[in-house]
Amino acid sequence: MYDLLKGLRVVEGSAFVAAPTCGLYLAQLGAEVIRFDNIGGGPDFRRWPLADNGSSLYWEGLNKAKKSIALDLTRPEGRELAQALATAPGDQAGLFVTNFPVDGFLSYAQLKARRDDLICVRVMGWADGSQGMDYTVNAALGLPQMTGPADDPRPVNHVLAAWDLLTGAYCAFALVSALLARGRDGQGREIRAPLSDIAAATMANLGFTAETLLTGHQRPRMGNDVYGAFGRDFTTRDGAKLMLLAITPKQWSKALDALGIAADVAALEAELGVSFAADEGLRFTHRARLYPLFERAFAAKTAAELTPAFDAGGVTWGAYQPLEAALADPRLYKDNPLFQAIANPSGLTYPAPGAMATIPQAKREPVRPAPRLGEHTDEVLAQVLGMSAAEIARLHDEGVVA
Amino acid sequence: MYDLLKGLRVVEGSAFVAAPTCGLYLAQLGAEVIRFDNIGGGPDFRRWPLADNGSSLYWEGLNKAKKSIALDLTRPEGRELAQALATAPGDQAGLFVTNFPVDGFLSYAQLKARRDDLICVRVMGWADGSQGMDYTVNAALGLPQMTGPADDPRPVNHVLAAWDLLTGAYCAFALVSALLARGRDGQGREIRAPLSDIAAATMANLGFTAETLLTGHQRPRMGNDVYGAFGRDFTTRDGAKLMLLAITPKQWSKALDALGIAADVAALEAELGVSFAADEGLRFTHRARLYPLFERAFAAKTAAELTPAFDAGGVTWGAYQPLEAALADPRLYKDNPLFQAIANPSGLTYPAPGAMATIPQAKREPVRPAPRLGEHTDEVLAQVLGMSAAEIARLHDEGVVA
Repeated sequence: MYDLLKGLRVVEGSAFVAAPTCGLYLAQLGAEVIRFDNIGGGPDFRRWPLADNGSSLYWEGLNKAKKSIALDLTRPEGRELAQALATAPGDQAGLFVTNFPVDGFLSYAQLKARRDDLICVRVMGWADGSQGMDYTVNAALGLPQMTGPADDPRPVNHVLAAWDLLTGAYCAFALVSALLARGRDGQGREIRAPLSDIAAATMANLGFTAETLLTGHQRPRMGNDVYGAFGRDFTTRDGAKLMLLAITPKQWSKALDALGIAADVAALEAELGVSFAADEGLRFTHRARLYPLFERAFAAKTAAELTPAFDAGGVTWGAYQPLEAALADPRLYKDNPLFQAIANPSGLTYPAPGAMATIPQAKREPVRPAPRLGEHTDEVLAQVLGMSAAEIARLHDEGVVA
Repeated sequence: MYDLLKGLRVVEGSAFVAAPTCGLYLAQLGAEVIRFDNIGGGPDFRRWPLADNGSSLYWEGLNKAKKSIALDLTRPEGRELAQALATAPGDQAGLFVTNFPVDGFLSYAQLKARRDDLICVRVMGWADGSQGMDYTVNAALGLPQMTGPADDPRPVNHVLAAWDLLTGAYCAFALVSALLARGRDGQGREIRAPLSDIAAATMANLGFTAETLLTGHQRPRMGNDVYGAFGRDFTTRDGAKLMLLAITPKQWSKALDALGIAADVAALEAELGVSFAADEGLRFTHRARLYPLFERAFAAKTAAELTPAFDAGGVTWGAYQPLEAALADPRLYKDNPLFQAIANPSGLTYPAPGAMATIPQAKREPVRPAPRLGEHTDEVLAQVLGMSAAEIARLHDEGVVA
């Protein structure tokens, strides 16, 4: 938690990963983020993984540091409250993040009619408004066919919803950028961020599409070989798998030195008439000749023998380890100042992270847990919409809020 | 291209994916982004994929809409110029994005001594400053062991550098947020974004770590099964692979209807005494019983028979297709207004994307290509550092710039 965005009020009407991470990033940099949900929870309220009592560890991970208000969104009065929240007054308000449909009661046109300078950032599936989620968009881009061992033709989906995550962060960036622009010109804007466009653009930004246009086909699947440079997993004498990477000349020479294979590689260079140090692409082209040298060097030693030499020699490497080992790894979790043990709505206390970046000169404020569903209903109705206690009581009595 | 960030000047000293995408996102929302590189190019200047003439399609994808200045960063005078650029005056300047080392000549302390209110966003590998890249950090988090078919124990790396991409977008968000804060308090800041922290925090935000703390072990690998809900790839009679997803009750009922298996599923529900519609987790728990019903329904029809019914019925699905098919897909590339054919530094003309999000009310400005290396050297020295033509000529003569 930092206070860079102190004073901003963002309203979030969201579910799943992309829009909630957008709100999470804003909240953990100091914005007040108010998430509204249907009474009983939105479609992501019971998503796995679950605690033993049925609480969603996923939901409480993605909604840390937010406020929660529960509305009956099936009824006109509940929908009216959602619109009122998104468009409530305030210089640093009128900021709405959502993945609700383009044309529904949270359409930009309807909201703009209530607040002309509204900034509305909308996560979508496909750009045309049709249903799309991370895994279906990803399948359409060829990546599952490029992923996994070369000897197995089955498509391999990613486990990490990368498009959702990228979309969430990009939406946070777009929202703050639109706020800067509004400060300059007074104009609100709708910003639509379809997963399909984020994914299509990214495949082009990384050169995948230009390559396919040139060659007529996508990159073949090649296991864990790093494309166009030198990198792969190798197995040590004691069966550990280590990822080794050498893109720059320095990374390359350090890897050869630490493995003690510089002379073997020099002999291969002489035979082939190439310089691997000067051109990472040649290391990739000739990787079938290089791999046996590396495989032998890895197989000759245990991980405990190799890895201190790697670290001392400045090699770019990483051990494959399961998440339970990562949790004991001081670099990732055990001693990471991003994390603090907090009491969560599930009733469980466990370490959770604040803002993902660090400002060394600033003190980290405490990590704030996710709200209980509806925890801030009364507070938000009073403070944001200026409702009286009697009005709020009526809404409760009639089941419009909870 | 949009003009949300018009007037901002960002200096970028970067390589690879994360820091360059940060600059790309800023540039395509209207900031002036000046990337400096070593004369002859940085460590990413020849990264694959390459055009036939050796130009990097990757580099020109990641540096669109930027200006380029080439400096001899091995000499004190070149380093001094890099520092001067990063800290040049201007209300909307003093914004520096880099992945140079924490302690080198581009350290925050050195730059802050030249401009007190500098905002410096620094991409790092590991938070302690040690070497780490997307693939080595990813290996340490267990994801490669969770990815791929359950019957194959080999770790599967992702092909898409998800941590780099998320870090780039998050850095763009953090930079603009720090600019908002500077507008309020006048303070500069260093913001450090290590891939290791972004990745560790994300695994926690998504509930992976809490789950592992609860169960003692990470999620097992389960092929393309969507965790905790219903989703997987299925094969049609003609061998097409389709991804099907049903997280919400609506997605579930629509899938059953379109496949004509609602009665079979109801019979299974009766047998098991459960309601799959009400609880997506039960669909996951009992997926081994459900899959045969779906497999039969998919195998009974061709993709051409199934997919119109899916679309008409509002099913959440996607076909696996290679990138060459995606390029002909009107939703992704063929008719996508994000893309325009532009002439690139490689000499090739091909479609490239502008800003990844869309503002329906605003006109998209033309997509701007990447610069040639050093294309703006003279312009930047004159306009940003106020140098005379004679001074610039001397720097060229002495090989300090190119």
